[in-house]
Amino acid sequence: MGVAISMDQKKKTQASIQPLMDLVRSDMGRVNDLILEKAGSDVQMIPEVAKHLIDSGGKRLRPMLTLAAAQMCGYCDDDPDAIGHIKLAMSVEFMHTATLLHDDVVDESDMRRGKLAARMLWGNQASVLVGDFLLGQAFRVMVDVGSLQALDVLSTAACVIAEGEVLQLSVAQNMKTTQADYMEVIRSKTAALFAAAAEVGPILGNRPEEEIVALRTYGLELGNAFQLIDDALDYGGSAADLGKNTGDDFREGKITLPVILANERGSDEDKAFWKRVMEERKFDEADLEHAMTLLQKTGALDDVLLQARQSGAAAIAALDVFEDSAHKSALIDAVEFCISRAH
Amino acid sequence: MGVAISMDQKKKTQASIQPLMDLVRSDMGRVNDLILEKAGSDVQMIPEVAKHLIDSGGKRLRPMLTLAAAQMCGYCDDDPDAIGHIKLAMSVEFMHTATLLHDDVVDESDMRRGKLAARMLWGNQASVLVGDFLLGQAFRVMVDVGSLQALDVLSTAACVIAEGEVLQLSVAQNMKTTQADYMEVIRSKTAALFAAAAEVGPILGNRPEEEIVALRTYGLELGNAFQLIDDALDYGGSAADLGKNTGDDFREGKITLPVILANERGSDEDKAFWKRVMEERKFDEADLEHAMTLLQKTGALDDVLLQARQSGAAAIAALDVFEDSAHKSALIDAVEFCISRAH
Repeated sequence: MGVAISMDQKKKTQASIQPLMDLVRSDMGRVNDLILEKAGSDVQMIPEVAKHLIDSGGKRLRPMLTLAAAQMCGYCDDDPDAIGHIKLAMSVEFMHTATLLHDDVVDESDMRRGKLAARMLWGNQASVLVGDFLLGQAFRVMVDVGSLQALDVLSTAACVIAEGEVLQLSVAQNMKTTQADYMEVIRSKTAALFAAAAEVGPILGNRPEEEIVALRTYGLELGNAFQLIDDALDYGGSAADLGKNTGDDFREGKITLPVILANERGSDEDKAFWKRVMEERKFDEADLEHAMTLLQKTGALDDVLLQARQSGAAAIAALDVFEDSAHKSALIDAVEFCISRAH
Repeated sequence: MGVAISMDQKKKTQASIQPLMDLVRSDMGRVNDLILEKAGSDVQMIPEVAKHLIDSGGKRLRPMLTLAAAQMCGYCDDDPDAIGHIKLAMSVEFMHTATLLHDDVVDESDMRRGKLAARMLWGNQASVLVGDFLLGQAFRVMVDVGSLQALDVLSTAACVIAEGEVLQLSVAQNMKTTQADYMEVIRSKTAALFAAAAEVGPILGNRPEEEIVALRTYGLELGNAFQLIDDALDYGGSAADLGKNTGDDFREGKITLPVILANERGSDEDKAFWKRVMEERKFDEADLEHAMTLLQKTGALDDVLLQARQSGAAAIAALDVFEDSAHKSALIDAVEFCISRAH
């Protein structure tokens, strides 16, 4: 089983996120308006940089989770003018955008979502500071919503994300990184925001703790699955599919699960190869080809996809506490969508 | 009038911040404990980087303002176990520390408070991410206090600070920068946090709007005075006094008020000099000496100190709404302290 993406499969994946997109379409329009408004500033460089990233065609998966969870939990049923979910969805997207800006500086990335990274156009300095501005705006807008419980969830996520990023830095280029280390990194840097994005929906809807826990778990496991697939695709997709370059993690010495598994299962010669390329950072493009061969040969990529499927199943199982509905069904399809990016 | 600091003057300045330090000493001990606790993380690099900066001997002026303002506004009078001011003071210091970490990356600074900047020891990456972590912790702790009004003030300050930093970046190395641009930069990047730090005191104490505005104005004008003096000292102090190197702003092409005034008042030859060093960035250490001569000759430094004194007077005047007390007197002395750093 490879990780290449065929055109047929792409059509199928686009279809399966469609129910979620349809359910939140109207609210997402309001989120997009608020995003543009809150990315505004008299300091010209701020909307320029923010717009570059906002326009670059991310799927807005995280704010979609907030909107769908809030809708499913009946937040807007009594008050059609309710706007808390729009504001929190915007805050979640700004937190994510700020992270991307800072990530590009930390990773020294040239590309982001198939476009030049902001730091290549405006410099590292602007990426750091505009990221700080967006994070500040995220907090300001969520304060405006007035739910201390939602503020607690989102501010905790902000800390956990930063911790995950620092942890990732600490274990970079270190082949002693364990599966547990890796899972801790992706849980923090990726899954924590998915979890918070989903969890604030039932909080807004004043739903019981059971439903809050269920949607947090759903978001967390979906986030884990999403990142596992992303890390597999880094050794299989192409820049056009991913909006980043295949082999970016390899070139940056990021120790992801495919590499951890291939190293564990490899011969002494394989282990020496991984040590040379990941720790000593001595490699050329031919080594990337060899790495991809080892990832296939050891079954490492297959097992990463298996783990992603297990996380996906856990996400879907968490929704059991909810009655069947169009929203529940769309959230289940979203899991399938994330996993079917690789096949 | 020069900007050199004599030993006699230093003794005098140390004395004048003393009343404020004495009043908040016990509370500041609790703030320091909380700082160490909240800078903790299982991710080892985080407390290492945070401790480096926290231990490096800043005066903790901003959290002192929060503590003194809360005490003056009777926040702890009814409940000696009240801890909101401790938590907000910690949050304010973390916001400041996060800004310093990001500033060093943006400015490519080698030194901070007389020690190697964190980025020189752990890299730009850790400085960006640990800054993000501290900012996240700041929000988390202020959410815990539960005052939406204080959250609004502090989250707005976070945005304004970032906006000020981006504005500073936009006007760097541009001799068309006006006095108004400069005042906008320092109001945002420095004074906004002083203002928020002081303003949350009366908010915690449930004091009337008049007192909230008064302490906000006090903090804002004190912050303006503080930054004006800092920018004057950059052309007069020494690395040991300032914890940074004399001429840092000059070397970075930061257009501060001394330079704006000296350029406005200079001959054509002077203007060509400023253009060459600040915009074209062609200079050597002898040019720094020449710059300092021009700043004296045109009276630019004198006028910066005059403006600092005017801001200081406005800060003191804002306290008129409060009855005389040890706290009011100590806050007045703190203004004198900030200004007397230069004489």
